[in-house]
Amino acid sequence: RVNADRLWDTLMDMAKIGPGIAGGNNRQTLTDSDAEGRRLFQTWCEGAGLSMGVDTMGNMFMTREGADPEALPVYVGSHLDTQPTGGKYDGVLGVLAGLEVIRSLNDLGIRTKHPIVVTNWTNEEGARFAPAMLASGVFAGVHSQDYAYGRKDPEGKTFGDELKRIGWVGDETVGARKMHAYFEYHIEQGPILEAEKKDIGVVTHCQGLWWLEFTLTGREAHTGSTPMNLRVNAGLAMSRILEMVQTVAMENQPGAVGGVGQVFFSPNSRNVLPGKVVFTVDIRSPDQAKLDSMRARIEAEAPKICDALGVGCSVEAVGHFDPVTFDPTLVSAVRKAAEDLGYSHMNIISGAGHDACWAAKVAPATMIMCPCVGGLSHNEAEDISKEWAAAGADVLLHAVIETAGI
Amino acid sequence: RVNADRLWDTLMDMAKIGPGIAGGNNRQTLTDSDAEGRRLFQTWCEGAGLSMGVDTMGNMFMTREGADPEALPVYVGSHLDTQPTGGKYDGVLGVLAGLEVIRSLNDLGIRTKHPIVVTNWTNEEGARFAPAMLASGVFAGVHSQDYAYGRKDPEGKTFGDELKRIGWVGDETVGARKMHAYFEYHIEQGPILEAEKKDIGVVTHCQGLWWLEFTLTGREAHTGSTPMNLRVNAGLAMSRILEMVQTVAMENQPGAVGGVGQVFFSPNSRNVLPGKVVFTVDIRSPDQAKLDSMRARIEAEAPKICDALGVGCSVEAVGHFDPVTFDPTLVSAVRKAAEDLGYSHMNIISGAGHDACWAAKVAPATMIMCPCVGGLSHNEAEDISKEWAAAGADVLLHAVIETAGI
Ligand SMILES: NC(=O)NCCC(=O)O
Ligand SMILES: NC(=O)NCCC(=O)O
Repeated sequence: RVNADRLWDTLMDMAKIGPGIAGGNNRQTLTDSDAEGRRLFQTWCEGAGLSMGVDTMGNMFMTREGADPEALPVYVGSHLDTQPTGGKYDGVLGVLAGLEVIRSLNDLGIRTKHPIVVTNWTNEEGARFAPAMLASGVFAGVHSQDYAYGRKDPEGKTFGDELKRIGWVGDETVGARKMHAYFEYHIEQGPILEAEKKDIGVVTHCQGLWWLEFTLTGREAHTGSTPMNLRVNAGLAMSRILEMVQTVAMENQPGAVGGVGQVFFSPNSRNVLPGKVVFTVDIRSPDQAKLDSMRARIEAEAPKICDALGVGCSVEAVGHFDPVTFDPTLVSAVRKAAEDLGYSHMNIISGAGHDACWAAKVAPATMIMCPCVGGLSHNEAEDISKEWAAAGADVLLHAVIETAGI
Repeated sequence: RVNADRLWDTLMDMAKIGPGIAGGNNRQTLTDSDAEGRRLFQTWCEGAGLSMGVDTMGNMFMTREGADPEALPVYVGSHLDTQPTGGKYDGVLGVLAGLEVIRSLNDLGIRTKHPIVVTNWTNEEGARFAPAMLASGVFAGVHSQDYAYGRKDPEGKTFGDELKRIGWVGDETVGARKMHAYFEYHIEQGPILEAEKKDIGVVTHCQGLWWLEFTLTGREAHTGSTPMNLRVNAGLAMSRILEMVQTVAMENQPGAVGGVGQVFFSPNSRNVLPGKVVFTVDIRSPDQAKLDSMRARIEAEAPKICDALGVGCSVEAVGHFDPVTFDPTLVSAVRKAAEDLGYSHMNIISGAGHDACWAAKVAPATMIMCPCVGGLSHNEAEDISKEWAAAGADVLLHAVIETAGI
């Protein structure tokens, strides 16, 4: 078993970097806080005898040598970046539990056949630069590095410039590494494990996603002196699209979600009807056909809603992944580890996207989940217990040993 | 008649300060550009022989002495501040036409009995600090100066600090001045005069307004892993309130408007359901009963919409004025001036709020309007012709001479 206290203390130490305003974290990708978090992680890893590689996307790979120099490494990872008002565990748990696996192997004097690499993927959240899971996506060949470098944050700063600015452009070619297997341990970010009173989620699938960024063009005009019939009201069109997205999601129950997290009114002045409204629709389903039909319907209905108001409507897909089925052998290894350790468990589908979804394109991959209080995540109040954290780390340790061989 | 070319050149010179991004202006109140605009106006005024007084709200009063030292001054004014993406004429025309009246009187060697004071009111737009017409409101005793000083812009900077920062806190007690009459010349900001092919709007009334700032409290949660039935979706509630405001406004036609210009999602991240949505509803009507019943209905229905979604709802009135009836004697003076000058004219109700609405609380007041292209305002594309600008200034000149006496 891992050292539960050490894992917890490590989590708490990382949480001191980029504190939020309500007990969580704001350690968004490629900020100074991100750089500070990376350095701390590097120090810890080097203290545990790992050697560092960094690729041109800033992905960090911390290697523990295996007994067989020919064997491909087993990767264990997640991300240290957070949402602007994020929790202390989303992503961080997976990276630091990877470190705890290494520390435990060191304590136990176990040398695995395959090397083990603990990974911190850059910009998983996608909060600052869409899409999410950007750097693992480039690693898996889904996006080009040029595309990634050109992504802009809301202030117009590019990913490439910001990666350089914080000093984390590595020299490894991104995606050059080959993986024997990839494990990602993560909090559920949903309510199921807690409700079902299970210690461990054995993640069999991940639902697919579309991020549809709408740009609605109205006519900037005075809210007081512009008669109702002369308005070209992009804000009203946005409202109707939000309602329509809700309807589409509800009509695809069970097994679908849809919502809007980000809205920009322009010029965003109380007495100006917005000339431009930009917002991103987030739709997901584990069912490929459902996901695609939801997208098609939203993209068909939104222009009609806008037309009726004279509002211009354009849409760009700024994030996408298909539903993922994880590797059956690794899934079995996770289930077996939970059983051997006496943890209650159930199969679960990941509601959120994870770097594991892209890793699954280039290697056998799977995930392990632990519950989180109230299913809450992407919220500074995100919470887990020390025991929950340790249970998943135990399972990770056993599944990694099983897969890396001794 | 005024000098049309000189008035136009003066407008174009002022428009060079705080240029926008699309041919208009971004000279928001209490910015460095505002300070620069104030200095230029001061220089022009002093060149025309006026002496400056500034009150503790930063309102500028440029005085031309009258023949009778006992007589109360006739005030002519408007505002030099603009929307973030504002036009070159909204407010500016009224101030610079006031200056043109002085210059014309100087050219003609006319000394009026009453002094004439050209006024630039601080923060008319309310774009940076709600409510609009803030400084004329303090002048008229509607708001306390403490209230005004404490108003915050979206970055949290206060009006008081910013007024000090730009160096325009004057020494006059605000509201101490007494007015014989107040005239404000303004572009219509609506489509009526252009559609009716009239040179001059004789403004008889101004519609009343409520700005209702809603703060909706949802639960920040992951857009992917939070099932539809567990969402506390403040963004959806906002959408429904926007639609309801539209319905309320449409059901009060003719003679009412309602809309939303400003929306803030928090944390405004694509994969986070908003924990907080703040937005401002702007409703107006020249009919007091209609205005109050619209407000009552919106404030009654919004909490029901929110309750149905589990969303918290609070509302604060951040701007208000009752419908205004302008002074019949001054209104007649404006109408007579238009007739004497051979300009086509019609009675009109102001759709926008103006400093004249507050001035009307403490003095006889009225307004003069000229058409603007397409009724467009609060838009960088706001446009008028030199001839339109001059016609209203001619009417202002004559109405002022009539009222100030010679
Ligand atoms: N795990 C997680 O929150 N990833 C961000 C991408 C997503 O929105 O699913
Ligand atoms: N004239 C003008 O645009 N004033 C701003 C206050 C309002 O919104 O009516």
